[in-house]
Amino acid sequence: MNQTDPFDLAALQRQKFDETPDGLHDLIRNRWSPRAFSDREVAVNDLRLLLEAARWAASCNNEQPWRFIVARKSDPEHFARLLGVLVEANQVWAKDAPVLMLTLTSTRFARNGSPNAWAHHDAGLALGNLMLQAVSMGMFAHGMAGYDAAKAREVFALPEDIVPVAAVAVGYHGDPRRLTEKHFKAELAPRTRKPLSDLLFASELR
Amino acid sequence: MNQTDPFDLAALQRQKFDETPDGLHDLIRNRWSPRAFSDREVAVNDLRLLLEAARWAASCNNEQPWRFIVARKSDPEHFARLLGVLVEANQVWAKDAPVLMLTLTSTRFARNGSPNAWAHHDAGLALGNLMLQAVSMGMFAHGMAGYDAAKAREVFALPEDIVPVAAVAVGYHGDPRRLTEKHFKAELAPRTRKPLSDLLFASELR
Repeated sequence: MNQTDPFDLAALQRQKFDETPDGLHDLIRNRWSPRAFSDREVAVNDLRLLLEAARWAASCNNEQPWRFIVARKSDPEHFARLLGVLVEANQVWAKDAPVLMLTLTSTRFARNGSPNAWAHHDAGLALGNLMLQAVSMGMFAHGMAGYDAAKAREVFALPEDIVPVAAVAVGYHGDPRRLTEKHFKAELAPRTRKPLSDLLFASELR
Repeated sequence: MNQTDPFDLAALQRQKFDETPDGLHDLIRNRWSPRAFSDREVAVNDLRLLLEAARWAASCNNEQPWRFIVARKSDPEHFARLLGVLVEANQVWAKDAPVLMLTLTSTRFARNGSPNAWAHHDAGLALGNLMLQAVSMGMFAHGMAGYDAAKAREVFALPEDIVPVAAVAVGYHGDPRRLTEKHFKAELAPRTRKPLSDLLFASELR
């Protein structure tokens, strides 16, 4: 590929959602997890809105167990600390995102200290809100399981009942040609999912 | 309140999101968890779209651990089975929803059988997608932790590695005056959340 050719991001975006059905909301259709981020900064107020989207998610008994560590590249020390928690395969590309986050969850109900079996579930639900709010603002949020939870616990001095859940790279999509060859190929591959029938249990849609 | 007065659902909806900030996407702003459902059926194709929204969610290694038991009221036996799994305090109102679901998650990675620590997280993320797709179609999905997981396992003969996660009532909002007094009050109460500052860990938004 000629490095001086403009790269057709819109075409890439379209091929990502070839298989999604008519009627699926655009935010859900257009959400995916890029690895190529542009240098464009995320304004603090926009970052705040992403967190507000998470904040207004549903949770078991309205417990709101989700917590967030947020690092902007404009705070290089803090950013480096969070980047250093990622596995190297993610550091390679996530270093270029303008914002990194680590989602955490509070594993006990505040009102009585009993274990909250929905702590991870609700943190995931909140992250989903954040991802869709990002799409609505022209951004993307790429969730990562590839990070060192024990290291995160140490680096950020997490209390025992606050556990790390997912790392997230946030920003605007950039030129995939800055990626390694393997990641470049992944960036261009269409999204795939199991057929809907595989997701239904003891049920028919009739 | 005069039972013959038309009930102002739009005003109720507005007061629900009084505290949400400008810029928050309408789907997230307008989502809440009603208990009053109308008798209006959910068309099978619309139900399918809700599940498609879940299907296209992000997941760890694209494992897609989410599974769904879906029961429409038009299949009374199946519906009664799912309703019977809820705690009584939820049965009281959920019996009027046109659709009940139970979300499940596959706790092991399909490729190697190792435990998937993001199984609940990703099921929550998928349910969040479903909730927002519902709002985009004029519907609501109300997640419930109040159900008997052991009973669900038995009634639906779940394999060991598929675990119940959340019950969900789905449909169109109805007249809150059909609810019990306690639920009627809850239906009219504004949504509340912790301040954003309480969600941030080792981070300042600057």
